[in-house]
Amino acid sequence: MNKVISFIGLGNMGLAIANNLLESGYSLQIYNRTAEKAQPLVDKGAKLAAHPADAVEGSNLVITMLANDQALEAVVLGENGILEKLSPGAIHLSMSTILPTTSRNLAAHHQRIGTNYLAAPVFGRPDAAAARKLWICLSGNEVAKSEVQSVLNVLGQGVFDFGEDVGAANVVKLTGNFLIISAIEAMAEAFTLAQKNGIERTKIAELFGQTLFACPIYQNYGRMIAHEEYEPAGFKLSLGLKDVTLVLQTASDSYMPMPFASILHERLMASVAQGRGDIDWTGLALEISQQAGIKDNF
Amino acid sequence: MNKVISFIGLGNMGLAIANNLLESGYSLQIYNRTAEKAQPLVDKGAKLAAHPADAVEGSNLVITMLANDQALEAVVLGENGILEKLSPGAIHLSMSTILPTTSRNLAAHHQRIGTNYLAAPVFGRPDAAAARKLWICLSGNEVAKSEVQSVLNVLGQGVFDFGEDVGAANVVKLTGNFLIISAIEAMAEAFTLAQKNGIERTKIAELFGQTLFACPIYQNYGRMIAHEEYEPAGFKLSLGLKDVTLVLQTASDSYMPMPFASILHERLMASVAQGRGDIDWTGLALEISQQAGIKDNF
Amino acid sequence: MNKVISFIGLGNMGLAIANNLLESGYSLQIYNRTAEKAQPLVDKGAKLAAHPADAVEGSNLVITMLANDQALEAVVLGENGILEKLSPGAIHLSMSTILPTTSRNLAAHHQRIGTNYLAAPVFGRPDAAAARKLWICLSGNEVAKSEVQSVLNVLGQGVFDFGEDVGAANVVKLTGNFLIISAIEAMAEAFTLAQKNGIERTKIAELFGQTLFACPIYQNYGRMIAHEEYEPAGFKLSLGLKDVTLVLQTASDSYMPMPFASILHERLMASVAQGRGDIDWTGLALEISQQAGIKDNF
Amino acid sequence: MNKVISFIGLGNMGLAIANNLLESGYSLQIYNRTAEKAQPLVDKGAKLAAHPADAVEGSNLVITMLANDQALEAVVLGENGILEKLSPGAIHLSMSTILPTTSRNLAAHHQRIGTNYLAAPVFGRPDAAAARKLWICLSGNEVAKSEVQSVLNVLGQGVFDFGEDVGAANVVKLTGNFLIISAIEAMAEAFTLAQKNGIERTKIAELFGQTLFACPIYQNYGRMIAHEEYEPAGFKLSLGLKDVTLVLQTASDSYMPMPFASILHERLMASVAQGRGDIDWTGLALEISQQAGIKDNF
Repeated sequence: MNKVISFIGLGNMGLAIANNLLESGYSLQIYNRTAEKAQPLVDKGAKLAAHPADAVEGSNLVITMLANDQALEAVVLGENGILEKLSPGAIHLSMSTILPTTSRNLAAHHQRIGTNYLAAPVFGRPDAAAARKLWICLSGNEVAKSEVQSVLNVLGQGVFDFGEDVGAANVVKLTGNFLIISAIEAMAEAFTLAQKNGIERTKIAELFGQTLFACPIYQNYGRMIAHEEYEPAGFKLSLGLKDVTLVLQTASDSYMPMPFASILHERLMASVAQGRGDIDWTGLALEISQQAGIKDNF
Repeated sequence: MNKVISFIGLGNMGLAIANNLLESGYSLQIYNRTAEKAQPLVDKGAKLAAHPADAVEGSNLVITMLANDQALEAVVLGENGILEKLSPGAIHLSMSTILPTTSRNLAAHHQRIGTNYLAAPVFGRPDAAAARKLWICLSGNEVAKSEVQSVLNVLGQGVFDFGEDVGAANVVKLTGNFLIISAIEAMAEAFTLAQKNGIERTKIAELFGQTLFACPIYQNYGRMIAHEEYEPAGFKLSLGLKDVTLVLQTASDSYMPMPFASILHERLMASVAQGRGDIDWTGLALEISQQAGIKDNF
Repeated sequence: MNKVISFIGLGNMGLAIANNLLESGYSLQIYNRTAEKAQPLVDKGAKLAAHPADAVEGSNLVITMLANDQALEAVVLGENGILEKLSPGAIHLSMSTILPTTSRNLAAHHQRIGTNYLAAPVFGRPDAAAARKLWICLSGNEVAKSEVQSVLNVLGQGVFDFGEDVGAANVVKLTGNFLIISAIEAMAEAFTLAQKNGIERTKIAELFGQTLFACPIYQNYGRMIAHEEYEPAGFKLSLGLKDVTLVLQTASDSYMPMPFASILHERLMASVAQGRGDIDWTGLALEISQQAGIKDNF
Repeated sequence: MNKVISFIGLGNMGLAIANNLLESGYSLQIYNRTAEKAQPLVDKGAKLAAHPADAVEGSNLVITMLANDQALEAVVLGENGILEKLSPGAIHLSMSTILPTTSRNLAAHHQRIGTNYLAAPVFGRPDAAAARKLWICLSGNEVAKSEVQSVLNVLGQGVFDFGEDVGAANVVKLTGNFLIISAIEAMAEAFTLAQKNGIERTKIAELFGQTLFACPIYQNYGRMIAHEEYEPAGFKLSLGLKDVTLVLQTASDSYMPMPFASILHERLMASVAQGRGDIDWTGLALEISQQAGIKDNF
């Protein structure tokens, strides 16, 4: 693996990851739909391409970090997409949170032209990405996985390998987000029940954060839900809806009921329909308060 | 507070707690419906009473740890119940997991005869009780609470005070159990979705236990759900159903929907109806596998 | 069976039924907590009693039509309750919508003193009662049932006998109300989906009322839901909540999940918590519109 | 409108409808993927085409009745699809149960080549189709709708026009199927609760079919659910799952929670996952019995 990497998708996550690669000595060929966002990297020497296809010329590793399945498919299969120019034997390391079926489908496209597609979605927010503290789920071809190991080591604190089915890592990523948002809903129901019974939300959040659930997910989200501070968004509610929709789609493809996921899907849709798509996903708690007749939160 | 304590209810939890009191130098007057279970304490000097009323004679602190609301009401208000003999000014420290309304109702009965009722439900299983590692939720009269502080310090690693409404600690205890069983359901749905997609349940459990959810609830229950080891029961599924029923009853009294609790109530009822009431409450996962068409778990 | 009947509970339903009995030549001894509501019957010759117990003196048939389980229990078992004065061999025809377990419990009390309790809940609103068009569900002792047949024929257009378990008729009544409110929720979801897609609610209501669901429940409730006319209440939403709570309690006693009933319970609780307990129960549709982000209905 | 009609899709519904057209004097050019199923129509003079495109040559009305969105899209847009040969000004009358977005998308394709697409899904089973008793929902271009009126009159007992948005009739059809299956679930829950309380399922079905719900949907499906006769299938459970999936997809596109639809989706997926996709859709009741611990139904 040489030191040239193509990187496509420079949102908050992509930017932090690409920056780490630059700082670790890799040369970057980058592309972003909104070119301005790439400027900080260009200032540090990254080469900005006009199209995804241009960004992958001459490189044998392309990393993508895009908003959703459609954006990724466009970058890969669309006009001026990377499949048009990807070098034989090159590896596409796909870090977006997408459907396993999308990964499987894209992997087949890559295989047809002699390139490799790996799924490598991550756990961690932009600050964790910047601190190289991501947890990386990986799946796909064994040889390709071994070739990207050194790059992954630069980006995260651990890699979990889920085998050769390229969709597996995507399933794992989706279940992780599902577990987080399930914890959010459970806390929001619990804290609201406490509040309806005259107990301060913050007191119950502190108890559980210190005892039964002494881990950051419960501590940090618990604090937000207790204080009802849903802005600015760390992770937008509308993105949470997107992810739960992917979870349910995957469950549906597997003919498997996931009642908690169904509840969450309804909760998040109602929140978006009522104009709360841009607040933090912990803000799903507002509908719980609303249904409980607690008016003064709005 | 002198050194004589009455203790009623010697199940696994009660036995461990009472034993700690004995070992800390308190004299115990004990009662249990099944007298044989009291023998280990009698062997260490505890005085076995024939009735709850006898057990509280001459004592100014009685601790109860009973299976449910009905058992506690019988011990307090029934024939030969403690209210018949409780000394004026005595304190009843009620550690059972019960409805807040039951606590409020019993507190009113105590107040009428000049005694005090405190709610003090705990988090922790019998091994935690034995190790004096319980977390204790406390609510009720301020003076009475200060009087029992030294005793509580003997039993647990921390006391959380939820104010003067005697039902508050019970609400908190119920929400805690609700959070735990919500985590169990969420993990069971997640692991089963992974399994349906060809991923080993244990691999995904390890990932989350080491990363996002590095706390004992997720690690320990996650291991059981991943390995599908639901026997012997650490906490029986039928008791989980009892607790979720109390959660929903409290929510209903508060006119508050708790959709996760409703799902859990249905799940646990179906499990009991199908004969799985005596396995561990993590065994609710079996119905998730059943609905997913994974046959070979039964 | 002689021509003296005791009648307790003169709400809208009770008043209509009692009036029919008077007009059919029966002598009535009546009681109502709010005595003024009895005046129309007193004007026609009914004898107003000061207590339930007084109302049953010398009578061998007492009919009760009360708001809920607690009101019925007070009338039967409370101070000056009917059990104090009921003649040996007398029959208590209980028409209220209550839990089957309440009927079974009250039947045991009656049996102990040599009287008979029959469950006879009805389908039909006050106007149907006035028109003698009620459908009556009946259960309990066979001999007692045959003795009340002539009276029942005066009140309704049909009697359905559900055997000797006195709780059976109550189960049937609860399932009937459950079917009705399930149809209301289903229509409200359907009409709102249509509206979100630019289709007039009234057009879709007309279609289904004329074709697939050409029966009064769908036609009449469908019209209300389509026009969003929820006041004045034909049947109050808070009473719908009471009935669904009884359904769920009965299901819980049977260890049986009823997911539609759980959804309805949540829906109705949220509606009451938000101050909509006094509108018609079809008004549960308002929360569906609210969650769909359709703001101008409030 | 001349007397030549193209007809594509000869399943049970399509066959019955096409046969009526033949008997009413229309000349048919037909296509079906499995050509043998067309034989009865060929015997009566219909002209069998080798491809969808061939079937529409020279005709200015094509009717399609296909299994799902994918089959319809293939017939329209695929190789040898009808868009390749459809005459300018011709009308495509699309009777399949599909997503409104599929209709809108196909209508745009038609418009581009100067042809018209109308949505005309129907209510009624094959026997109703044969008896010309279908209810037809119609939407799309006003002129085109008036041109097909005489043909529609041959096929059904009534046409309901839902305006110019071509997707509207599809929304209505989906909500109708949703109302039916909601009634099935509600009855199944109700009858099972009755059974758990010692009441015969058939007795309660009779009561409701004669009183509150005296319409064929409740009477006929109620009978099947009461007798637990789920084979042979009148409408396969797996097709019910398909339709509920389309309902939820449409609700999701509208950002609207439909909790009853979510429950039904879970119920039907679990049924299919457990191997019950080929029984009648009333057979969703089996899972309700299973969860209630009633074993002897399997």
